Amino acid sequence: MGDLKQAPVTPGLSFDFAALPPAARYKLLTGLVVPRPIALVTTISPAGVVNAAPFSFFNTFAQEPPLLVLGMDARPGGEMKDTLANIRQNRAFVVHLVDEDSARDMNDCAIDFPSAIGEPAALGLALAPGTHGPVPRLSAAPVAMECRQVTTLNFGPMRDLVIGEVLALHTRAGIIDADTLRTDYEVFKPVGRLGGTFYSFQNQRFSMERESYAAYVARTKAPAPEDGPA
Amino acid sequence: MGDLKQAPVTPGLSFDFAALPPAARYKLLTGLVVPRPIALVTTISPAGVVNAAPFSFFNTFAQEPPLLVLGMDARPGGEMKDTLANIRQNRAFVVHLVDEDSARDMNDCAIDFPSAIGEPAALGLALAPGTHGPVPRLSAAPVAMECRQVTTLNFGPMRDLVIGEVLALHTRAGIIDADTLRTDYEVFKPVGRLGGTFYSFQNQRFSMERESYAAYVARTKAPAPEDGPA
Repeated sequence: MGDLKQAPVTPGLSFDFAALPPAARYKLLTGLVVPRPIALVTTISPAGVVNAAPFSFFNTFAQEPPLLVLGMDARPGGEMKDTLANIRQNRAFVVHLVDEDSARDMNDCAIDFPSAIGEPAALGLALAPGTHGPVPRLSAAPVAMECRQVTTLNFGPMRDLVIGEVLALHTRAGIIDADTLRTDYEVFKPVGRLGGTFYSFQNQRFSMERESYAAYVARTKAPAPEDGPA
Repeated sequence: MGDLKQAPVTPGLSFDFAALPPAARYKLLTGLVVPRPIALVTTISPAGVVNAAPFSFFNTFAQEPPLLVLGMDARPGGEMKDTLANIRQNRAFVVHLVDEDSARDMNDCAIDFPSAIGEPAALGLALAPGTHGPVPRLSAAPVAMECRQVTTLNFGPMRDLVIGEVLALHTRAGIIDADTLRTDYEVFKPVGRLGGTFYSFQNQRFSMERESYAAYVARTKAPAPEDGPA
């Protein structure tokens, strides 16, 4: 890199995670691993209370089988939260994605309601019956995915990773083109999770095509690099 | 919901995933589970070739232990890709987040270079030695996390989920406030993954405070809901 100017460089920060308390790791990981998709998850208790709670330790990970993963923490005392307790009971849950219109409701579902109070009932969120399981979905959600727990991995007293398989997906009209299955983001208007109290709109987009190696070679007329033959 | 107008409603779409080919599920899941954070992952082969490849089946899932998950597919014929093969060899990898300046390099790392060609060498991306493992990191990356594989879950011929623990995190100057550990998104300028060829900027943000149940009750003067006592 002989062409780099020898200007003074402001050094960055480095953190040894073994020396860092969990709360500091949380701040760094949630501030920097962004933007995260948001899952608003409904479950149902043995008593029939429908619970709803948001999670951004969440993503899809495969289409075959179609997998989602959710990271769930315990209450400060180590007690299991409603969502995980319910999934352990009946293995069923519904993941909703969050759009601009439902962001406020999602945030209200993060209120620490007592277990006997279902967030959809308390907040007046309409429900539709599940078609592939016992858990109702939020009628107004742009996207709802009915899931079955494949397994749950435990990582100590405060953390479980729920791996779920998507059984069915429901979208509001206009989001998915029925012929091409393409998403119209002007209709969907999804919201992402950043660190702290911050969220992001997804209205400023750009496009990049993935290039083949043959196209790259033709474009760059690249010679074989020093570390190996082409 | 007696106040809803009885206007005709355009019905949404519903998909039974068991009846859908994997390619269709992929389009729906990658188009709708958004925005996804992007991991640009470096690994090192037994021969010493440093590989770099991007993944958006990725997120952080815990701070204690500090966990990341990466979803990795196989080549069309079922052969393992370089990143997974290398992680299986030495259990080490580095996850870099992607900002506006490195988006083009990230996309170039998705080119299907032959295994003997390391993307950083071919593309002229400078490397810095690992401090917590054998894998070098990309010097220009805004964030680099040195990781050790905890375990890898296999889901058939085409899909593995790598669970990694973060050993160390390095940030470029200005992104993290050393006192508060807060992220400055105006400096970071992270990029998110949407469906198809689309990516999103994260420059339009909003903030929502999480509310306590006591504050909610005071604000709404909510009576105990019908489905349970407060």
